Amino acid sequence: MSLGEFDIIARYFANHDHRADVLLGVGDDAAVLDVRGAGRRLVVAIDTIVEGVHFPRSIDASAIGYRALAVNLSDIAAMGAEPAWMTLSLSLPEAAEAWIAGFASGLLELAEQHDVALVGGDTVRGPLVVTVQLAGWVEEDKWLTRSGARPGDVLMISGIPGEAAAGLHVIQQHMPLTEAAAQLQWRFLRPRPRVALGRQIRTVATAAMDVSDGLLTDLQKLCAASQCGARLDIDALPTSTAMRELFDAEAAIDYALAGGDDYELIFTLPSQRLPELLAQRDPALPLTKIGIITAGSGVECERHGATFTPRRSGYDHFAVGESP
Amino acid sequence: MSLGEFDIIARYFANHDHRADVLLGVGDDAAVLDVRGAGRRLVVAIDTIVEGVHFPRSIDASAIGYRALAVNLSDIAAMGAEPAWMTLSLSLPEAAEAWIAGFASGLLELAEQHDVALVGGDTVRGPLVVTVQLAGWVEEDKWLTRSGARPGDVLMISGIPGEAAAGLHVIQQHMPLTEAAAQLQWRFLRPRPRVALGRQIRTVATAAMDVSDGLLTDLQKLCAASQCGARLDIDALPTSTAMRELFDAEAAIDYALAGGDDYELIFTLPSQRLPELLAQRDPALPLTKIGIITAGSGVECERHGATFTPRRSGYDHFAVGESP
Repeated sequence: MSLGEFDIIARYFANHDHRADVLLGVGDDAAVLDVRGAGRRLVVAIDTIVEGVHFPRSIDASAIGYRALAVNLSDIAAMGAEPAWMTLSLSLPEAAEAWIAGFASGLLELAEQHDVALVGGDTVRGPLVVTVQLAGWVEEDKWLTRSGARPGDVLMISGIPGEAAAGLHVIQQHMPLTEAAAQLQWRFLRPRPRVALGRQIRTVATAAMDVSDGLLTDLQKLCAASQCGARLDIDALPTSTAMRELFDAEAAIDYALAGGDDYELIFTLPSQRLPELLAQRDPALPLTKIGIITAGSGVECERHGATFTPRRSGYDHFAVGESP
Repeated sequence: MSLGEFDIIARYFANHDHRADVLLGVGDDAAVLDVRGAGRRLVVAIDTIVEGVHFPRSIDASAIGYRALAVNLSDIAAMGAEPAWMTLSLSLPEAAEAWIAGFASGLLELAEQHDVALVGGDTVRGPLVVTVQLAGWVEEDKWLTRSGARPGDVLMISGIPGEAAAGLHVIQQHMPLTEAAAQLQWRFLRPRPRVALGRQIRTVATAAMDVSDGLLTDLQKLCAASQCGARLDIDALPTSTAMRELFDAEAAIDYALAGGDDYELIFTLPSQRLPELLAQRDPALPLTKIGIITAGSGVECERHGATFTPRRSGYDHFAVGESP
């Protein structure tokens, strides 16, 4: 069945402006927000996901809605900020009500976890493309960027890089859904943006970035922004029982270095502040030292004490000769 | 030729964060904005345009870039707000450099006219879909919504409704480019968002909305939001020499009532405040009284003193049986 554009917004998305700072939400030409409050800065991120590029055609609508917000929460997390409001653009081939209901449930499930209000949207007919723009707050004394890393800083990563890409492989190859396979698949379908970690490291980290296009690619970007290099210790890369059960060590390294969609944070900090960070860590989230920032440029990998050349680098949507 | 995603943003879009309130612009995980300043509210709009749906495949890249921002400026205008920052999501089939340069020139041409800074963006591979999210400011004492119209208010429109749809017809039918045809075509390719008018009517209008899906459709939405009706005087609809030269009276009425993409403002105000408004009007922009708000519901059209039934209504992307 089909619905008018107005009805789509009203029926599935309009009742989510529960925050007191949303003075006017979905349904007018624009939203009006209360941004009073001294000592704060507004942080704004935008990210788009496209069917067949950022997610396979086969995954269910709720996973797509969840992902559209998760990728933006991950950017807000990398700034050390706290999310507040989002706007949604939804380009859809057809207004299939069940699909829209599923999409909205996934989007709003994650929004509620992070107290994010949907304050505006646009639904149009077209290919399946979803854009979410997310705004949040950070204290004016410090926010995290990619550009503050300094030689000698230690390089940290949250979670297990490569699990999401391995989970996508599970989906695309229709691998038998053992417990390990299901766990990896879930890591792809329900990435956990590290908002709490971003808040925690805000004052201690010198640089931070979320890993969306693969550790190697994103670390190179962080190094370029910070005008420094990095030495990455392949032996230190964290791995998981599920990864070890389903993939050999070489494949696990490929996924960890080049697999996208992790939405973990990489960040740097002076080594003397590491104990303070580790003392406050969330026991459920691994934080691993995977390398060190150097005075050079680019990323150098080391394995078993020797230079290591990865088989794959990361994924850049437009680069020539790259494949996802 | 192709460019990496990072290069695209850096090369064409990164140098536009000239506003003092942009603390961190394009290039990091998110932008950081200074939103201090008492007495103001943040206004946020998002709009998406899709190739083949919102513009024909044949139009040049600069017109697409211009349009992507214009449709959002029009929403901000309808709130009585002043634009400030935008974020851009650009889904592109290929990274053709000439196309991107053209797109950026059109987008930034309009951005500079309105002092809008591009503070963030995402470029992805996919079908041609462009989303701009625009934020701006409005004074806390009053912003314009669709919901404030009251029975007895006069109904006004800016500009000449229908010219843009007529211009699209000129393009799609490859009509000979006489001066009149070129003028209408330009109205489609370079819509002029009525930001200054929005600011001017902020304190006098009871309701306002931009006309993007056709006068009749959008007026119906305004009436629904305001829980009132409207009587539209077809004889009062403004027309132009170009329209009269190329189209007969009936076609001109069709375009005025059902044609999309005008990006003019409709607004309502108490009749006793009309002289004050007209005294301050921009002589280059027609403001026309086209009807009156009633206590009923829905829109009733009147022509030559009798009820008039339009041949076409507006355009809703998802509605059944509608064609653009």
